[in-house]
Amino acid sequence: MNSAHRTEISALGEFGLIDHLTQNIELQNASSVLGVGDDAAVIDHFGKQTVVTTDLLIEGVHFDLVYTPLKHLGYKSVVVNLSDIYAMNATPTQITISLGISNRFSVEALDEFYEGVYAACNKYGVDLVGGDTSSSQKGFIISVTAIGEVAPDKFVKRSTAQKGDLLCVSGTLGAAYVGLLFLEREKKIYMESPGVQPDLEGESYVIGRLLKPEARKDIVEFLAQQEVMPTAMMDISDGLSSELLHICKQSNLGCVLYEEKLPVAEQMRMAAYKFEIDPTACALSGGEDYELVFTVSQSDYDKLVLNEEISVVGYMTEPEAGVHIITKGGGKHAITAQGWNHMK
Amino acid sequence: MNSAHRTEISALGEFGLIDHLTQNIELQNASSVLGVGDDAAVIDHFGKQTVVTTDLLIEGVHFDLVYTPLKHLGYKSVVVNLSDIYAMNATPTQITISLGISNRFSVEALDEFYEGVYAACNKYGVDLVGGDTSSSQKGFIISVTAIGEVAPDKFVKRSTAQKGDLLCVSGTLGAAYVGLLFLEREKKIYMESPGVQPDLEGESYVIGRLLKPEARKDIVEFLAQQEVMPTAMMDISDGLSSELLHICKQSNLGCVLYEEKLPVAEQMRMAAYKFEIDPTACALSGGEDYELVFTVSQSDYDKLVLNEEISVVGYMTEPEAGVHIITKGGGKHAITAQGWNHMK
Repeated sequence: MNSAHRTEISALGEFGLIDHLTQNIELQNASSVLGVGDDAAVIDHFGKQTVVTTDLLIEGVHFDLVYTPLKHLGYKSVVVNLSDIYAMNATPTQITISLGISNRFSVEALDEFYEGVYAACNKYGVDLVGGDTSSSQKGFIISVTAIGEVAPDKFVKRSTAQKGDLLCVSGTLGAAYVGLLFLEREKKIYMESPGVQPDLEGESYVIGRLLKPEARKDIVEFLAQQEVMPTAMMDISDGLSSELLHICKQSNLGCVLYEEKLPVAEQMRMAAYKFEIDPTACALSGGEDYELVFTVSQSDYDKLVLNEEISVVGYMTEPEAGVHIITKGGGKHAITAQGWNHMK
Repeated sequence: MNSAHRTEISALGEFGLIDHLTQNIELQNASSVLGVGDDAAVIDHFGKQTVVTTDLLIEGVHFDLVYTPLKHLGYKSVVVNLSDIYAMNATPTQITISLGISNRFSVEALDEFYEGVYAACNKYGVDLVGGDTSSSQKGFIISVTAIGEVAPDKFVKRSTAQKGDLLCVSGTLGAAYVGLLFLEREKKIYMESPGVQPDLEGESYVIGRLLKPEARKDIVEFLAQQEVMPTAMMDISDGLSSELLHICKQSNLGCVLYEEKLPVAEQMRMAAYKFEIDPTACALSGGEDYELVFTVSQSDYDKLVLNEEISVVGYMTEPEAGVHIITKGGGKHAITAQGWNHMK
């Protein structure tokens, strides 16, 4: 934390703290009828359907404050929820945030966190309309609920992919996971020898992918402009393998994926080699990229190729064919979930 | 926990656990377009406004598992959020729940918690439509978001009370706080002498008020039937004093409260005497009763007296008059917030 001054949270009290953190909110959306400061917020989506998702982020499980700047954490806490709204083919409009804070946090530390929260709100055009703060005995706890809107029945589920559909992903995969490996390695070195400076030279791409992910608003907007309605869509938070198994199971289909088609950034590939791990394994199983995986009708192929940020990586098959990857060498392997499973 | 059998959560995995906990959900509301099992839930309030509130409950801060049965905790976690929706004069329709669970919890323990969640959902007619489960390093963490609906502009804020309005509360006040005192006392005795059986004889009323609160759906429905539109409303979670100060500050008014009008249950009064504390102090400052405090126009008085569950306890004044209580002896005292402030 950069702040030279430290203000104890107890100096403001619970209600003073909420006032302090929310005093500069200007509601951006007409749908935000009533924001922070009452028992509940009020939203009017004017005939559209309301989309809602929630995520709980716990220090030591989902993030490590040793290498996560609070501003980035605030930004990411919002983005990962907005990503779920976009994954429904919807537009996020509001968020609520509840925090559990231990007394090692100062008001200035929370200000940094909220700087990131508001930066994400501004970038994505969403309003912070409510929340809750309380103390926690241990660790920082963040609960975000994101709300969005979608024209009636324009939302896209996981369960409606069709046989023969093209399987697509946005952006590049696996870099956030490799970024985590670097930060965990440097943390370990630092814990053993606190004098050693971290060696993250040249790894800003993979580390940025972990610490400052973006939600793929642009992809959802592009698909709408092109009048491409995905047949199924999810965001990639646990890893592509895990998400594909969800889509296949819920749509009662199989799929084939081509290793050579998987979008991986050169920086990720080089970084993976430093850890002597397979870039393809990172792309399949690494989580937290917050890209979108979606299926579209083959007839939409010509529209998709207009966007360099979209890769067609395979296609959907009958369920009996299972879920497979065809390697560059021509081998065929079953895909199993090895995503980031926080319960293990 | 009564269950003889213990199933480790790791035996099911994260997705297996979610399936297990949500497999019997039958959506009750037409507004629940899409429930558990996708990136987000989809809700259609068909022209009504959407109301949203969220609460974070942390073991050791908001509840103590030594004396809180998990089923009651699940029930209460839902009810405290529904109470916020009713306090907006709205009808709750959906909830999402996110849990952070340490490995001391078994699947059977979570089943007990969800029994309470579903019991509350059934009683209040709301659908569980989403959530998230993850591990926690320490303690049980519960984040609930409740969503409701209200006809456009029929919601009731805290800031719109009028000078001269009657100040009303539902039910009785202070009992949950005294229930907490009993449970804390028995916990202390138990910790010092584990062989001693708890002595809670005759205190089921106050303990029930703490462990199994209800949201005042009936009051909101009664007011609607009588066509009484409150001018301001809040639920009483931190204590009447604290809530009154919010309403007065946000409405830019003062108020006068009469001690003799405060609704206190005889069981609470007797229990408070055992702790040698003033029942009026409990009614003013005790939290977690989840009653409603609201203001109405004087012209609605005749309608209010039809309901024994509503007490008129005072009236709203100009702001210069401050916030005061007139005691039974005729004394006049300023009211200050001494509610349950979790940040202290």
